[in-house]
Amino acid sequence: MPSYHPRTAAGLTWHDATAGFREGRDTPRAYLERCLGVIAAREEELRAFVVYDPDFARQQADDSSARWAAGAPLSTIDGMPIGIKDLIETRDFPTQMGCAAYAGNFPRRDSAMIQALKQAGAIILGKTVTTELGQSEPGPTKNPWDATRTPGGSSSGSAAAVAAGMVPAAIGTQVGGSIIRPAAFCGNVALKPTQGGIHRGERQGSSQSTAGIHANSYEDMWQVAIEIAKRAGGDPGTLGLVGPDTPPHPARPQTLGLLKTEAWAMLRPAEREAFEALLERIRALGIPVLTDHPALAALERIAAQGKAVTAVIVGFENRWALLNLEANHPGGLSARAIARLRASEALTAEDYRAALATREEMRTAMARLAPVVDALIAPAAPGIAPVWDPDDTQDPRPTGDIAANAATSALGVPCVTLPVMAVEGMPFGAQLIGQAHQDARTAATAHWLHSRL
Amino acid sequence: MPSYHPRTAAGLTWHDATAGFREGRDTPRAYLERCLGVIAAREEELRAFVVYDPDFARQQADDSSARWAAGAPLSTIDGMPIGIKDLIETRDFPTQMGCAAYAGNFPRRDSAMIQALKQAGAIILGKTVTTELGQSEPGPTKNPWDATRTPGGSSSGSAAAVAAGMVPAAIGTQVGGSIIRPAAFCGNVALKPTQGGIHRGERQGSSQSTAGIHANSYEDMWQVAIEIAKRAGGDPGTLGLVGPDTPPHPARPQTLGLLKTEAWAMLRPAEREAFEALLERIRALGIPVLTDHPALAALERIAAQGKAVTAVIVGFENRWALLNLEANHPGGLSARAIARLRASEALTAEDYRAALATREEMRTAMARLAPVVDALIAPAAPGIAPVWDPDDTQDPRPTGDIAANAATSALGVPCVTLPVMAVEGMPFGAQLIGQAHQDARTAATAHWLHSRL
Repeated sequence: MPSYHPRTAAGLTWHDATAGFREGRDTPRAYLERCLGVIAAREEELRAFVVYDPDFARQQADDSSARWAAGAPLSTIDGMPIGIKDLIETRDFPTQMGCAAYAGNFPRRDSAMIQALKQAGAIILGKTVTTELGQSEPGPTKNPWDATRTPGGSSSGSAAAVAAGMVPAAIGTQVGGSIIRPAAFCGNVALKPTQGGIHRGERQGSSQSTAGIHANSYEDMWQVAIEIAKRAGGDPGTLGLVGPDTPPHPARPQTLGLLKTEAWAMLRPAEREAFEALLERIRALGIPVLTDHPALAALERIAAQGKAVTAVIVGFENRWALLNLEANHPGGLSARAIARLRASEALTAEDYRAALATREEMRTAMARLAPVVDALIAPAAPGIAPVWDPDDTQDPRPTGDIAANAATSALGVPCVTLPVMAVEGMPFGAQLIGQAHQDARTAATAHWLHSRL
Repeated sequence: MPSYHPRTAAGLTWHDATAGFREGRDTPRAYLERCLGVIAAREEELRAFVVYDPDFARQQADDSSARWAAGAPLSTIDGMPIGIKDLIETRDFPTQMGCAAYAGNFPRRDSAMIQALKQAGAIILGKTVTTELGQSEPGPTKNPWDATRTPGGSSSGSAAAVAAGMVPAAIGTQVGGSIIRPAAFCGNVALKPTQGGIHRGERQGSSQSTAGIHANSYEDMWQVAIEIAKRAGGDPGTLGLVGPDTPPHPARPQTLGLLKTEAWAMLRPAEREAFEALLERIRALGIPVLTDHPALAALERIAAQGKAVTAVIVGFENRWALLNLEANHPGGLSARAIARLRASEALTAEDYRAALATREEMRTAMARLAPVVDALIAPAAPGIAPVWDPDDTQDPRPTGDIAANAATSALGVPCVTLPVMAVEGMPFGAQLIGQAHQDARTAATAHWLHSRL
C-alpha cells in the first residue's frame, strides 16, 4: 500500500471531469468504468461496500451520458457514482445497518436524500459499510492506506471508498464523529453540516445525527450537499443547508481559534507536533490563531463534557428502538450494542433533559465566538487511525475514539475535515468548525486554507 | 342516541376510581369489564376500534389488580385501559394507519410512549381508528352523539371511544387539528401538548405532529400525559412535557384573549351565539376576555395564514414517504391522498423554507402575548360535527375543516379542548391556547374555567 502524503494523494474527483462530458471527450459511462476498475482492484481487500450493482449503475450512466451528449444534464452531478452509507434507505438495495437484526431488510424505499440525488441524475452505486447501527461494533472495512488500521467509523465504507478512488463522493452520517473522524483517518475532505442540514430520511430518532458528504475535493463535497438540500431540504422543521448552488469560492479567514477538545490530551507527540506545525503554517500566512481568548476558554470548559453529554443523549434516544430490536431479534445485536443498551436503561428523562440543557449551553458558548473568530480549528481525530484487531472484542471503540468530535457534534455546527497532515505515512486530518448555518463559509475557508497549506 | 348537554354528559373517568382499588371496593379487572360492556354495546355501531383484545387486556388487568391489592401499583394509571391511535406502533397489535398500503403491517415494536405506558401499568386495550395516515380519507367511525355525523379526525376512534365511555383515555396525534377538533365534536377534554411534548415514536417525519391525550376529565388527561413524559420524555431533542407528577390544581386566570382564527367566519349563527354566550359567562366571573389588543390583532393577522402554512409544511414533509408508498403499493392510497400528493410535488424546498419562516413569525407573535393574557380562547372547531356521507368522495374534508386548528397547531403551543357548549344537541368545544411549555398552566386554567361554567 502507498504511504500517504497530503500533497501527492490526488483523489478521484468529479467537478473537473464535467468539462470532458460537455465537450464529448469523456462520458459518465467511461467515468463509471474507471470507478468499477478501482473497485475490482481493491474491494476484495478493503471491503468498503456491503453491496453494489455494476450493471444497474451502467444503465444509469448510459442514460446520464445521453443527457450530457444532448447538452441537458439534470445537474452538474448528473452521472456521478455515489456510495450510500447503509443506514440510509434505498429502493434499489437492502438497508442492513451493519446489524444482524436487519439482515435482509429491504423496504424498497428511497430516503428523501436519495430521491433528491436521483432527481439530480446521480448514480446510487451501492451501499457502504457502516458500523452496527452507527454505533461501536465495526464492519469489515479496512483503511486504504494501511489494511491493519481502521478506516474509522461509523461511516467506514464511505470514507474508504472515497479515499481509495472507488467513487468521487459518498454519504455518511454523524452522531458523535462518524463523518469527520473516518475522513481524517482516510484522508478525505468531508462536510458534517449544521445539525439537520441534509434531510436524513426515515431515521429521525436522534437529535444529534446529521447526514454529510465524503469527497476528494471541496467542490464535489459542496455540490453533492447542495444538490440534495435544494431539492429535499434539511430535516423536517429545520432551515436545512443554505448556500450557493455552486461551490463557494475559497475564502481567506481573518482570524481562527484553536479549539482544544477532549482529544487534545490524547495526541501522541508526533501528532501534536504535526498539528502545531500546521498552526505555524497558518500563522505564517498572516492569519492569527487565537489560543487564549476568554470566550474560547469558556467554550473549552463546557466542551470538555462533550463525550459525557453525547453518551446520555444518544443512549436515551436510542434506547426505545434498541429495546424493540432486542426483543424481536434474539442474537441480532452485538455484545457491544447490548452492553450499551443496558447502560442506557439507567438513564432517566431528567438525565436526558439535563444533557440537552448542557448541550444548549455549549451552543451558546459557541455562538459567543461568532464575533471573535471566523472558525475554529482542531485535530479531526485523537491521532491517526489505530491498528485494529478484528478479534479483539474488548476494545470499546475499535473504529477510534469520539473525543475530537463529541463536542463538535453536540454543538450542531458545520465541521469540515481538511486532509492536510501526514504522520507515519498515514493521513491525519484537521477539522474546521464554523457557526451554525455558516456551512458555505466554513467550506470556503477550509478550501482556502487547504489550497495554501 | 342521547342528546348532548355538557352538564349531564358524565363521561367515564379513572382518577376517581383509584380510591376504590386502593380500598378493595373495586379492581382494575372490574373496571375493564365495565369498559368491555360498553364496547360490546356500542362498538358495532360506532366502529371506534380497528382491533382490540379483551382477553389480553384481562390478563393485564388481573396483574394490575394484584398490584393494587398489594398496595404497590406502578403508578396511579396502573390498570387504566387505553386506546391507541393506529398511527402509533404497538408490539401487540398491527399498525395499519387507516391505509390500504399498510394493511397487515405488524412490526411488533412498541413506540417509546407505549413502552412508557406499559411501565406505568396501563393496559393497551387496542388500536383506535385513524383517518388514512392522519390525513383526509375517513375511517368508519361514527360520532357517539349522532351516528350520521363525523366524530372528527384524524383521531376519530380515540375521540369516539372516550366519548362513548369505552375507555377513560386514548392517545391521539395532531398535525392540523386531529386531537382538538374530534374532542370538540365528541365532547371530550383533550390536550395537544407543546410541539414535541410527548415522544411520538417512529413517525418523526413531520415537524408539526404532536401526540396528545383524549379523556373525560382534566385529571386523567394530565396524568396519562405526564406518566408518558416522565419516562420517555418528548420528541428527541425537545424538552418534552414539563409539569407536576399529579394533575395541576385548577387555576383562575387573570385575563384571557379571544383568538379569531380562520374558523371564526365559518361559525353558523347558533354556534357564534353559543360561543359569545360562553365569553359572557367568563366575563361574568370577573375575568376580562380581550378582543382588541394590538398584540392580539398582530397574531390574528398572521394566524390567518394558518391553513396555507400548514398545507405547505405538511405537503412538503409528507411527500417523500408518500411517493415511496405510492410506488410500492399500487392502489394502496386513497384518491384523496393521491390528489394531495400530486399537489405537494409542485412545492419546492424554498416554498417549504418560506412556510417555516412564516410559522416562526406566528410563534413570535404568540410569544408577545405572554405578558398580556394567561391564555387565548377560541372555538375548537368551525362548528359542531358535520353530517357525513361515506359515499361522498368529493368532500375534501369529510372529518371537518382544520380552520380552527391549523394556526394553533402551527404555533406549537399547548391547546386544551373544553367541552362546555352544546348546539342542536351536539357537543361544541372551546379550546384554550397557552404559551409554549405552559401545558400544566393551560390545563389548570381549562380545568378551573370548566368547573365554573
